[in-house]
Amino acid sequence: MLLDTRLPVRYIFRDILPDIIRVFFISVIFQLLKQFLAQDIPLIPLQLPTVLGGSISLLLAFKISQSYDRWWEARKVWGAITNDSRTLVLQVRTFVADGAALPSELSIQAITYRQIAWCYSLGQALRGLDPMHCLDEFLSEPELAYIQGHANKPLALLDLHANQIKQLYQREAINSFQQVQLDDTQVRLCDAMGRAERIKSTVFPTSYRLMVYLFIYLFLITLSLGLVETIGPWEVPLLLGIATTYFLLERTARYLQDPFNNRPTDTPVTTIARNIEINLKQLLGDSKVPAPLAAEEYYRM
Amino acid sequence: MLLDTRLPVRYIFRDILPDIIRVFFISVIFQLLKQFLAQDIPLIPLQLPTVLGGSISLLLAFKISQSYDRWWEARKVWGAITNDSRTLVLQVRTFVADGAALPSELSIQAITYRQIAWCYSLGQALRGLDPMHCLDEFLSEPELAYIQGHANKPLALLDLHANQIKQLYQREAINSFQQVQLDDTQVRLCDAMGRAERIKSTVFPTSYRLMVYLFIYLFLITLSLGLVETIGPWEVPLLLGIATTYFLLERTARYLQDPFNNRPTDTPVTTIARNIEINLKQLLGDSKVPAPLAAEEYYRM
Amino acid sequence: MLLDTRLPVRYIFRDILPDIIRVFFISVIFQLLKQFLAQDIPLIPLQLPTVLGGSISLLLAFKISQSYDRWWEARKVWGAITNDSRTLVLQVRTFVADGAALPSELSIQAITYRQIAWCYSLGQALRGLDPMHCLDEFLSEPELAYIQGHANKPLALLDLHANQIKQLYQREAINSFQQVQLDDTQVRLCDAMGRAERIKSTVFPTSYRLMVYLFIYLFLITLSLGLVETIGPWEVPLLLGIATTYFLLERTARYLQDPFNNRPTDTPVTTIARNIEINLKQLLGDSKVPAPLAAEEYYRM
Amino acid sequence: MLLDTRLPVRYIFRDILPDIIRVFFISVIFQLLKQFLAQDIPLIPLQLPTVLGGSISLLLAFKISQSYDRWWEARKVWGAITNDSRTLVLQVRTFVADGAALPSELSIQAITYRQIAWCYSLGQALRGLDPMHCLDEFLSEPELAYIQGHANKPLALLDLHANQIKQLYQREAINSFQQVQLDDTQVRLCDAMGRAERIKSTVFPTSYRLMVYLFIYLFLITLSLGLVETIGPWEVPLLLGIATTYFLLERTARYLQDPFNNRPTDTPVTTIARNIEINLKQLLGDSKVPAPLAAEEYYRM
Amino acid sequence: MLLDTRLPVRYIFRDILPDIIRVFFISVIFQLLKQFLAQDIPLIPLQLPTVLGGSISLLLAFKISQSYDRWWEARKVWGAITNDSRTLVLQVRTFVADGAALPSELSIQAITYRQIAWCYSLGQALRGLDPMHCLDEFLSEPELAYIQGHANKPLALLDLHANQIKQLYQREAINSFQQVQLDDTQVRLCDAMGRAERIKSTVFPTSYRLMVYLFIYLFLITLSLGLVETIGPWEVPLLLGIATTYFLLERTARYLQDPFNNRPTDTPVTTIARNIEINLKQLLGDSKVPAPLAAEEYYRM
Repeated sequence: MLLDTRLPVRYIFRDILPDIIRVFFISVIFQLLKQFLAQDIPLIPLQLPTVLGGSISLLLAFKISQSYDRWWEARKVWGAITNDSRTLVLQVRTFVADGAALPSELSIQAITYRQIAWCYSLGQALRGLDPMHCLDEFLSEPELAYIQGHANKPLALLDLHANQIKQLYQREAINSFQQVQLDDTQVRLCDAMGRAERIKSTVFPTSYRLMVYLFIYLFLITLSLGLVETIGPWEVPLLLGIATTYFLLERTARYLQDPFNNRPTDTPVTTIARNIEINLKQLLGDSKVPAPLAAEEYYRM
Repeated sequence: MLLDTRLPVRYIFRDILPDIIRVFFISVIFQLLKQFLAQDIPLIPLQLPTVLGGSISLLLAFKISQSYDRWWEARKVWGAITNDSRTLVLQVRTFVADGAALPSELSIQAITYRQIAWCYSLGQALRGLDPMHCLDEFLSEPELAYIQGHANKPLALLDLHANQIKQLYQREAINSFQQVQLDDTQVRLCDAMGRAERIKSTVFPTSYRLMVYLFIYLFLITLSLGLVETIGPWEVPLLLGIATTYFLLERTARYLQDPFNNRPTDTPVTTIARNIEINLKQLLGDSKVPAPLAAEEYYRM
Repeated sequence: MLLDTRLPVRYIFRDILPDIIRVFFISVIFQLLKQFLAQDIPLIPLQLPTVLGGSISLLLAFKISQSYDRWWEARKVWGAITNDSRTLVLQVRTFVADGAALPSELSIQAITYRQIAWCYSLGQALRGLDPMHCLDEFLSEPELAYIQGHANKPLALLDLHANQIKQLYQREAINSFQQVQLDDTQVRLCDAMGRAERIKSTVFPTSYRLMVYLFIYLFLITLSLGLVETIGPWEVPLLLGIATTYFLLERTARYLQDPFNNRPTDTPVTTIARNIEINLKQLLGDSKVPAPLAAEEYYRM
Repeated sequence: MLLDTRLPVRYIFRDILPDIIRVFFISVIFQLLKQFLAQDIPLIPLQLPTVLGGSISLLLAFKISQSYDRWWEARKVWGAITNDSRTLVLQVRTFVADGAALPSELSIQAITYRQIAWCYSLGQALRGLDPMHCLDEFLSEPELAYIQGHANKPLALLDLHANQIKQLYQREAINSFQQVQLDDTQVRLCDAMGRAERIKSTVFPTSYRLMVYLFIYLFLITLSLGLVETIGPWEVPLLLGIATTYFLLERTARYLQDPFNNRPTDTPVTTIARNIEINLKQLLGDSKVPAPLAAEEYYRM
Repeated sequence: MLLDTRLPVRYIFRDILPDIIRVFFISVIFQLLKQFLAQDIPLIPLQLPTVLGGSISLLLAFKISQSYDRWWEARKVWGAITNDSRTLVLQVRTFVADGAALPSELSIQAITYRQIAWCYSLGQALRGLDPMHCLDEFLSEPELAYIQGHANKPLALLDLHANQIKQLYQREAINSFQQVQLDDTQVRLCDAMGRAERIKSTVFPTSYRLMVYLFIYLFLITLSLGLVETIGPWEVPLLLGIATTYFLLERTARYLQDPFNNRPTDTPVTTIARNIEINLKQLLGDSKVPAPLAAEEYYRM
């Protein structure tokens, strides 16, 4: 997530440099063509690029709006994960009559730490990084061994939750109502995981990007031909300026579309997982509560 | 689902060729008309096609946005199917006290395999393909015989689920709370199936497409008349370029509207069903887990 | 629901004929006025109708989009009715321990047939047709007599459902959990009915239609005055073409707004009710399953 | 709610008269200024008001769309109130084993009548009218005395519902499951009440209205200056026509924003409450069912 | 929340003064540049700023609409908090059989006062103010001591709720169904808290603001160059007027985006918390009910 500070120039520049260069060459070529073929090229009325500019704006407005929705949905999913992680621990603490009498693998601490591990692991998995990273801090040896055999690590962790809830019920630490209520929370966690995976795995319709580019180039060509006789070489910076803003807009939208791609515009899943760790450990009365994750220069991961 | 790769030229071309040809003839005819009837035709001010271009853009923006919503809703439904399939198996594993003691037709494996079969069968049925395809891999003989008699195969599979849950309850393998909780999951599956069928069976208001075409042709005619004296035969490629982008946009939106039509832009139901199969078999501890479905050249089914 | 086929010309024509005639007279009158009062009327710059055209487009885009939402919500409500009808029967079959021992008025078939009757009756009531039409096929004499006395027939049918569920519980055919779970399904059916009635009874803000017309006429007047010196009698077909598309658009939106009005653009409630009948009868193992409702020439009811 | 009939001219006129007068003076003043200062004022190109007109349209489109959403949400809330009122009575009738044996203050009729009272009272309270109006028809003396002491009458009525449910449970007229199910319905009623109050008490961001006015006046000034040399005194009716439609649009949106303000554009809460009364009394088998509320000339309250 | 009254000029002025000054200098510099370099600068056609103006409008429309959604969602969250606070107290009063027999730390008053404290504390925490402010009025000493040790005070208060519910169940003041039903309410409160925190902590994509500024300046430059020969020094107030409205619009949207920032445009969390206090105390029959919070001159906090 980009922070509300001044973005470093290099961050913006790195993004738009290829586009600036490409548009620069296009406008220079147009300029040269016009000098040598002045009498053969048509004088296009400026209403045409105006219409095309309107179409680009509407297409980009659609893209911006849908990609914002994906980004905001991703953030909502992780908000729901925060809420349900807290809820899970509050519920276990409310429901389990005598937590002290449980063996360590069924303790309230075990499910809490596994929930923290699930958050970190899901964040890593969504970003295509190692989903086992740092999990040994929160999981026991047998748990680590169990999830090693699964392709989908977070799902395996939910399976361990399910198993613990089953055993708590069989030992009568919770009753049937409470088992079902805890299962409800787990259904929501499973749902949140699936929604994040859906956003990750669904490609935004590729054709729209193609169409945006088609429109932008058509706009540039007609605009360039429309300006043939009026402004001469001033056309180059002008085309450059306008085209660059459109490309930048398209690119910003494209980045927001994929909020789990290990980029500064990502949903800050690591920061959120750390905050969940802090909340849950404080609910447990744990003494080793870590500090919140420090932000990078202009973004949070 | 189209992948985030370069689309093959032939895929794009196949789509727009008829449109290109039609628009080509239209503009040539206009061109000829103008040469022979130059003094009789009016010089239409270019503001008119500008207004019409704006109306086309807004109408297309509406169409793009609604068809994206249908496509995204279809994807959400299949995300929900993924989540509830996982949830169903997690729940059965949590609730059934002693799975080993059950007869094979009531076993956890039976409901899991039937759930996998349901996903494949629903995907096929939505695409209008054979809903029994490959089901013998997952279902027993009596189950296959039972669903053979139903018009709606996935509904018949849900009926078998319902029957198994009833018998698990009657044998006291699950209690009344757990029966109701499993029933909740089945309600959600039934709901997801119905939502996918609704998207499949509801035709997007036909009149809007008619209107888009009407506007595009009105736009082309006024534009062509408006350019009468300025750009001569250059009009042909210009009209071609602009009209083609509008038609392409309309066509892209139309494809997204119907995400279960056995086309590359479909919701990738087969891929999702395969992923569900992998997840569920790993939860069962099954040894024969298949590989994920390989993608086609530029899309996934 | 209009089908995805070529709409018959007469269907489109019947709709737009009055508008075509009205606009024709308007433009002819303008034409005559201009010939006799040429020196007295102002030459309005074409930017003015351009601005007005933009406003019309945005207002129409709003109207199209909201009426589509109403239409889509109506379709969603009927999708939910399909799902909950199936769910109700699946649940009754799962929950009732021994269906055979029940008296016929409490049998699974009784509630299933009453649910089918409810779907047909709700569809008829929404369209303002006789809500008792054909119900004698599905209901017993005492049931028919009971609902006769109610103003809202579908609500009376739900009351009969409620009564059957109460008696099933009192005879211990279902337990308390199952009663509550069935009640949940009934809450959803009651909700769907209320949502459909809300769409039916809520008039889309009338002022907006007025405003659209005001804008269209203002647009036509300024455009007509703006074209005074350029295109002469060609103005008539031009105004006709543009105005007609705007009126058509407004009219299409208006039709979609009211999806229970016994028109070809209606939500196809009869078709859906018939499909529910087929599904439910097959779940019962009934032998007399009817065929799906045949479509009309270009639409489904 | 405005009906789908011809709105009386005086209703429309009363609304726009002040605006018409104000715009009339503005355009006359501009006209005079131009006659005396013709050489000193700049000739503004008409592209400027075009851009401003586009901005106004987009701002108004936003306002129209958000105010429609508020209005539609208000209608949805009252739709939900209809559904949950019906559901409450159906549930009480299903759950309470032997209604006849209850004392009158705990009878099914008592909760039904109190629910009707709640609907009327909430409607009055939202409109800022007397929330006790006519309640003596539905409530007993002690109930009237109890709610007299509360600032929020509908909340006090829900409290009486809660109390009745508690006593029904203590007398074992309902069991624990049924108590919780009835409580669910009450949670939804409490939720609907809060949502209506939220719409009532939240002021739409005031700055946007300011901005719309700023844009409209800027538009009028630049347009007036842009037309300096072309159309002379015809400018007055032209400005009048265009400005009036914009003001009308803004005003329509503003009215829809506040659907509980005792105006013809209100959500028809009294009509809905009366329909609920009819439905609930028919479910009770009551003999004194009132007629539906008659509509006013062009609206329903 | 800004009230529906005339905003004081100084409030609007304070906001836009820096922008007015900056745009003033920009236009003066352009004016001077043009006087000294008149022959070297190009005459840009006015269609260009028109296209850019359209793009600005669409980008601003997107920003306005998304920031309104955030603001409205924040208001909805606090509406839900109102509803669930009322629900919690109604439920406790319904469920707890004999409130009088409870020790004071488990009394209905204790949970009610803690719920009031939670509302105030959450409001303060969201605004970055002291979350312990005034809590001693509602909480006992041990409760104050307990939450002192937590980073997230409202979460600690929910933990105390959870603990009280656990002890009510262990003392058999509520049964298992009722415990689960109360837990449901607590899940919703935890959810509302998390949703408010999400809105607070998620920065709106920074790049879009950059882009809006880029477009506005590009628009101003091309517009200024386009007006070179027509209107002379009149350009300064004209640019000033147009740019100011765009900046004002962007700024209004930016303020709405962050509804928990201790500004007059905030969601009025203190007012809402006070209203909840009044409602809950009246439900308890408390005698010391405070008055509603008085509004500030033109806003409510």
